Amino acid sequence: MSVSTVAADRPLCDELNVLGRDVQVPLAAGGEIGYAALDYAASAPALQRVWDDVAAYAPYYGSVHRGAGYLSQLSTDLFENARATVADFLGCRDDDQVIFTRSTTDSLNLLAAALPEATRVFVFETEHHAALLPWEQRDGVDVTYLDAPRTPRQAVDTLEKALAARDPYGPALVCVTGASNVTGEIWPVKELAAAAHAHGARIVLDAAQLVPHQPVHLAALDVDWVAFSGHKLYAPFGSGVLAGRADWLQAADPYLAGGGASRTVARRPDGGVDVAWHTTAARHEAGSPNVIGAYAIASACRALTDAGFDTVVAREQELIARVRTGLAEIPEVRVLSLFGDDAHRVGVLSFVVDGWDSGDLAGALSARYGIGVRDGLFCAHPLVRALLGGAPDSPAECGSPAAGGSPAVGGSVLGAVRVSFGAGTPDEHVDRFVRAVRELVA
Amino acid sequence: MSVSTVAADRPLCDELNVLGRDVQVPLAAGGEIGYAALDYAASAPALQRVWDDVAAYAPYYGSVHRGAGYLSQLSTDLFENARATVADFLGCRDDDQVIFTRSTTDSLNLLAAALPEATRVFVFETEHHAALLPWEQRDGVDVTYLDAPRTPRQAVDTLEKALAARDPYGPALVCVTGASNVTGEIWPVKELAAAAHAHGARIVLDAAQLVPHQPVHLAALDVDWVAFSGHKLYAPFGSGVLAGRADWLQAADPYLAGGGASRTVARRPDGGVDVAWHTTAARHEAGSPNVIGAYAIASACRALTDAGFDTVVAREQELIARVRTGLAEIPEVRVLSLFGDDAHRVGVLSFVVDGWDSGDLAGALSARYGIGVRDGLFCAHPLVRALLGGAPDSPAECGSPAAGGSPAVGGSVLGAVRVSFGAGTPDEHVDRFVRAVRELVA
Repeated sequence: MSVSTVAADRPLCDELNVLGRDVQVPLAAGGEIGYAALDYAASAPALQRVWDDVAAYAPYYGSVHRGAGYLSQLSTDLFENARATVADFLGCRDDDQVIFTRSTTDSLNLLAAALPEATRVFVFETEHHAALLPWEQRDGVDVTYLDAPRTPRQAVDTLEKALAARDPYGPALVCVTGASNVTGEIWPVKELAAAAHAHGARIVLDAAQLVPHQPVHLAALDVDWVAFSGHKLYAPFGSGVLAGRADWLQAADPYLAGGGASRTVARRPDGGVDVAWHTTAARHEAGSPNVIGAYAIASACRALTDAGFDTVVAREQELIARVRTGLAEIPEVRVLSLFGDDAHRVGVLSFVVDGWDSGDLAGALSARYGIGVRDGLFCAHPLVRALLGGAPDSPAECGSPAAGGSPAVGGSVLGAVRVSFGAGTPDEHVDRFVRAVRELVA
Repeated sequence: MSVSTVAADRPLCDELNVLGRDVQVPLAAGGEIGYAALDYAASAPALQRVWDDVAAYAPYYGSVHRGAGYLSQLSTDLFENARATVADFLGCRDDDQVIFTRSTTDSLNLLAAALPEATRVFVFETEHHAALLPWEQRDGVDVTYLDAPRTPRQAVDTLEKALAARDPYGPALVCVTGASNVTGEIWPVKELAAAAHAHGARIVLDAAQLVPHQPVHLAALDVDWVAFSGHKLYAPFGSGVLAGRADWLQAADPYLAGGGASRTVARRPDGGVDVAWHTTAARHEAGSPNVIGAYAIASACRALTDAGFDTVVAREQELIARVRTGLAEIPEVRVLSLFGDDAHRVGVLSFVVDGWDSGDLAGALSARYGIGVRDGLFCAHPLVRALLGGAPDSPAECGSPAAGGSPAVGGSVLGAVRVSFGAGTPDEHVDRFVRAVRELVA
């Protein structure tokens, strides 16, 4: 028995099949229909292969790094192999660290906590809140919010100007998304990384929306860190990743204090406690690691690699074209975009419809067509406001238990509808979606 | 289809069956044997019922709090129902909050981050590092480490004296374990809570080792918070819990900054960003919640409740008696204890054997008998040192990738062997363990 044979029982299947493809949901008018999951940008379904790997491992589950028994040793191997698989998947440099976190949000909060004193952070207002908000929480860190650019070139120019003007010229970090969670548009990551480095700054890539759709290669992009979540990468078992430069991470206080991060702990003669912390990834992984979550991410990385990103990208571009062509034929629909029609995109697209509240539209897509999309501001309030033309501030909720439809502001409605897809999405789902929008608008 | 019917397909089975009961592992001498998982205190196997519930839900997985689609609504219900189930299981007061974290370590770090300015923390040196170390990480918090007590009464007296002597008499927090992760001994939680409250302090219960073994009732114990991990409660899917008083949590900065915790985000005219944060549990749960992890914990709570804690406790006391009686007949074995033979215990027990390195013993139990235990200092270095009679400090590793056997210090060996068990443990496993120790020592 070994790590590889644990997973050997899984049935052969299409690498990109997902769970839930046979799920039926009720329609408001009666009857049922196959669920069209078109909210991948929030959380993607698990790959069948990821599920099969987790199911094959589950009986062998044991404590990681902590036991002398066979299953503890096996689980430790599995966990550390998952780290190596992720490093390979991301094209990490030899001296990069891969830290398992709980999510992209957690990864970026970890990096924020690890910034050297007086680091200045530069971030576009277009970021998801997970990439926008962690930095100001850190005492002594000054954040510059950059206005939404209207072309990739403008993004690079804006960043260069801001970095050059910083005073004093100390440590700086740029945080940038790989693909927008609202428009799906791909940002010029390599150019932004070059600009950051040219001006003595470092850069972290929020790859939450990029890594499920395109190859992300740290070394080739020359970014310093990358963050992503398992639940958007078809591996929804509570784990995420921060990968990249070890130096700031090793120099920082441990993210969580506890077992696993502490190497030795001893009482001092004065009654206090002395702690020596690890300098490896374990420094920031206190507590028993989520081995199932990490293994699931590694399984997804292997599945995407085995399927070939060429195949993934080609299939997705086909679906994007289908949606865009379909929506373009509905005059009431306005697709949201920062960079215009020529922008490169992943399978994420938001739009508004004249005369429709986005919450009502999303509700009708679900109740009448069995289609799951998202509506609102997508945890990217400043960006959606910029895209909608400076609508006034409103008490828009963001992913909370109280979240309802789109908030109305003085009669005007703030929010959009987002459709998103990826592995396992059949033509029928996007075709049904386009037809549904056409019928509802008519 | 509803939350309850999602889980209705699971086959009827013994509520306390666990995964992995048929796993065979190789023996050094050749051949295989059924694995005896006796390291529950590190990570317990998943309950079969928890696994079945997760498997039944997995195809219905969707984004929580974030989507308009049917599966998002279903998943949101499932997640919030899980919160209610945990609140019920823990005997929470009406105004308590249940926050899903990643682990006990994470829960206690969250509480440390939420302490009011200048809170004084009181903690016995006997705590697991997860309960010992988070407090000093918080700026402005002063920690008093209390010496290991030798009776439950002495624990209460020591705490009362320390609390009464604090100067100034400001906000204070006591952190105490429910059951030791080293000795399995149960601490006088209710008496410690009364002492804390009598002296104007609050108390948090580290229930990581208690909640799988005994009913824990917040209101009845009158503790302010309780923390535990899913992976020790037969639900190893990356989630933990902090439950208790809402006031300090609502007043604190959000634990993580990001979507879900933020209610509204807007640019200010001066270029900065204004954020309004939630005051519900969502305040400290930024990022997409780990719905599978939370659902798994709720499933375990239901399974233990359905089985009846009377049954769980009675069965476990039977196993404890078997182990203790067996080990008592081996003169070379010394069982570690703070409170003596009469102490109440859960199914966790550590011991040393004259003439044996604990790492060698644990290795032999695995290689020759297929038994999984843990050896070392169990992420409770000061406690193990106190129990072993003040052995000198050493570079003992704690749950790290570099962890090997027990560290030798100047010829003497520091560390012990821990055996632990619970739901699903058959007589044969503990009998094999006692026989194995007897044979190895002889």
